[in-house]
Amino acid sequence: MKKYQLLAEHIQAQIEQGVWRAGDRLPSLREQVAHSGMSFMTVSHAYQTLESQGVIVARPQSGYFVASRPQSERSPTKAIHSGTVDINTYIFDVLQASRDPAIVPFGSAFPDPRLFPLQQLNRSLTRVGRNASAVSLTSNLPPGNEELRQAIARRYAAQGMRISPDEIVITAGALEALNLSLQAVTNPGDWVIVEDPCFYGALQALERLRLRALAIPSDIREGINLQALEQALQTSPVRACWLMTNCQNPMGFTLNQQKKQQLLALLKRYNVTLIEDDVYTDLWSGREKPQPVRAWDDGSSVMHCSSFSKCLVAGFRIGWVAAGVHARRIQELQLMSTLSTSSPMQMALVDYLTTRSYDAHLRRLRRELMERKQQAIEALHRHFPAQVQIHSHDGGFFLWIELPPHLDASALSDAALACGISIAPGKMFTTSQAWHHAFRLNVSWAWSEREEQAVRRLGTLIAQKLEQEC
Amino acid sequence: MKKYQLLAEHIQAQIEQGVWRAGDRLPSLREQVAHSGMSFMTVSHAYQTLESQGVIVARPQSGYFVASRPQSERSPTKAIHSGTVDINTYIFDVLQASRDPAIVPFGSAFPDPRLFPLQQLNRSLTRVGRNASAVSLTSNLPPGNEELRQAIARRYAAQGMRISPDEIVITAGALEALNLSLQAVTNPGDWVIVEDPCFYGALQALERLRLRALAIPSDIREGINLQALEQALQTSPVRACWLMTNCQNPMGFTLNQQKKQQLLALLKRYNVTLIEDDVYTDLWSGREKPQPVRAWDDGSSVMHCSSFSKCLVAGFRIGWVAAGVHARRIQELQLMSTLSTSSPMQMALVDYLTTRSYDAHLRRLRRELMERKQQAIEALHRHFPAQVQIHSHDGGFFLWIELPPHLDASALSDAALACGISIAPGKMFTTSQAWHHAFRLNVSWAWSEREEQAVRRLGTLIAQKLEQEC
Repeated sequence: MKKYQLLAEHIQAQIEQGVWRAGDRLPSLREQVAHSGMSFMTVSHAYQTLESQGVIVARPQSGYFVASRPQSERSPTKAIHSGTVDINTYIFDVLQASRDPAIVPFGSAFPDPRLFPLQQLNRSLTRVGRNASAVSLTSNLPPGNEELRQAIARRYAAQGMRISPDEIVITAGALEALNLSLQAVTNPGDWVIVEDPCFYGALQALERLRLRALAIPSDIREGINLQALEQALQTSPVRACWLMTNCQNPMGFTLNQQKKQQLLALLKRYNVTLIEDDVYTDLWSGREKPQPVRAWDDGSSVMHCSSFSKCLVAGFRIGWVAAGVHARRIQELQLMSTLSTSSPMQMALVDYLTTRSYDAHLRRLRRELMERKQQAIEALHRHFPAQVQIHSHDGGFFLWIELPPHLDASALSDAALACGISIAPGKMFTTSQAWHHAFRLNVSWAWSEREEQAVRRLGTLIAQKLEQEC
Repeated sequence: MKKYQLLAEHIQAQIEQGVWRAGDRLPSLREQVAHSGMSFMTVSHAYQTLESQGVIVARPQSGYFVASRPQSERSPTKAIHSGTVDINTYIFDVLQASRDPAIVPFGSAFPDPRLFPLQQLNRSLTRVGRNASAVSLTSNLPPGNEELRQAIARRYAAQGMRISPDEIVITAGALEALNLSLQAVTNPGDWVIVEDPCFYGALQALERLRLRALAIPSDIREGINLQALEQALQTSPVRACWLMTNCQNPMGFTLNQQKKQQLLALLKRYNVTLIEDDVYTDLWSGREKPQPVRAWDDGSSVMHCSSFSKCLVAGFRIGWVAAGVHARRIQELQLMSTLSTSSPMQMALVDYLTTRSYDAHLRRLRRELMERKQQAIEALHRHFPAQVQIHSHDGGFFLWIELPPHLDASALSDAALACGISIAPGKMFTTSQAWHHAFRLNVSWAWSEREEQAVRRLGTLIAQKLEQEC
């Protein structure tokens, strides 16, 4: 590391430790030269670096001052890590539980697999088995099977978006796409914007890649708070922003067009890359499919990540990123970590997409999910105490449930799991304390006596917690 | 970061920059207090930290001195990064080239796919397509398909090794297994032992995870130098050691039993985890299959990584790690990054392994590879200049070719690629300058006029380089 970088790091560390606080005047260049014994060139280079990072600001005639930071700032290595250990443990329990058919999987992130066209997918697998090149690696190396990338590009085109197959990289589900995208545009220690609450995978990725989180509050109806976002961008050197714009996980909202455009304009102004997690978008409702933010970008500012796992087949583990200018870097990172996704899976999807009507399946899927959600909401109203708030949106298959603020949804989750019911408590989705009283409910299941009883049981458990608290 | 840590980092950086060299006496505590303006407590805490890390040593009555380091030590963020850019670019060229049937793929890391049982694998795919649960995710989540883990455990048992299916985690090829294993036992900044030369994936992983490399020289016959290894372990706080013990890539050697046991004893003594990359082991030759180091470990010190990609099918992207005590952590890391490998691929392998004789296939494969290697060696002797050294081993399908030390194999690689021939130059496998004159040759291809001409062309290009140098 160069001397000026060491000095810059040293000063930044002092600021983080509170040695210098927002608004404080830093030692002048000459004073710093005297302290550090470093040359004037080195010291001024260090100050310029900190200034370019937005850590300090120069004021004519008066010197260098520490920039102010937003309230929401958190050091993830503390805030996130403490949470993440629990999150991993909990994800483990939920996933292990989800293997057990005896557990009612209200905590699952995947829709009822019985809603997927299993027979058609199996026939595609069978056909691929007759294809001589099915097991060959080379034709499916990153960026991935060409026909599959073309099929995905055509689906973008049908939405009026111009995405070239050449910028699409096939990945092991959207999760690998999101992780590679984040890695492609950040270095350890960089600042990244996430939502509060957000998909726990984002928090895990930040911790894994040693990034610093700025959690911006999101509203159950309006989504991310653009004022808080701009304040964060003004005061911190943010590299990337990871969020969901359609059927957000866990809350379920979809940003309106105007807000999506405002979000993009804001991020472009601060030269921040948006990593757009759009895995539930095909579960939209209303007149037409909502556009992702990527629709207004030329590929320089937005990396659009999605998959087939939530709407067609989870077991294939096939997702993608429309990576724009970062497509090459994504491929390099994939070659280093998993090399590529499996050839037969890519080819089976090509077969399905070219011989079946994916859109007809999606129409049936959306209709069925809407009906099931309605049944679930009615059951919740029958069995949940009046103090519980039930938030629902037209798209997707999640309900966001708020208990009275003094109740802990994690405790409810433990009690429910003991009764053979899984839920996804708010703690999984936040680095703050703001959502510990909430939980996410997957309502994609065919409504039977089993689901009815499970909801009744949850209602009883909540009622018991309410009494205990009184 | 705490003040003492900043000071420790600052001093370590000075040492890495050569401000203080091995054996130099550092400023005394009191002198350091005077320079830094930090408290005596802080300074002595910083010195103790550096001492505990083996960076400096205290000598009674005389103060603190910079510890001596092995010659091979390098700061990867410098040495590796500069190399890695080229490596990625080169891997890209080789892989892109390998898609083009017009290129003779002597640079490839995979054997001729025509040696794989494509029809049998396709039939397994077809049968999986008839299986109702083929596309289901949950039964194949980490640690992976239970039958597949049992089949792998039985193969270990056939070798006299006791590996429980419960400690096996199915991954996207061995590459994901190796990356997850390294991540499971290290933190950024930790020291990791690699071989020189070694599989480039190890160098890429170190850079990606921000780890520090200690490259230990390996001999073409004897493998890793245990004296140099012990010296490194004595002088640096090493966390992990990543190396290949059977049919090493790129040089091809297999460590003998005694050396494997010595290696394990040495690593255990210093409490260093061995990440054993064993992907070519089934291409052994001789009377019986060589044991991995894991055979003498109880799962506390060795993580054994392998795959089906080099011997059965590359396109499925299925590998595994016998992770011992780290199995749970590996699963957590996988759930964060790729979630799981695809269900149908795992089930197709189960079908193949339970309905076919994998061992009969491996016997045919080894016999065929041996014959092809012999033909290749004869061709090299016909067409290569006498100054070229051809190193071959019984197992595997790589030859390690040494040009006269003053020749650059990377230049030869560029010239060869221009002639439609790929090779793997030594620069890909090292952070030192030691192997820039060597290259790896894949000789798994059926020997025809095309291969003969390619070798003749390479011989001519080498001869031209020799003349230019004179």
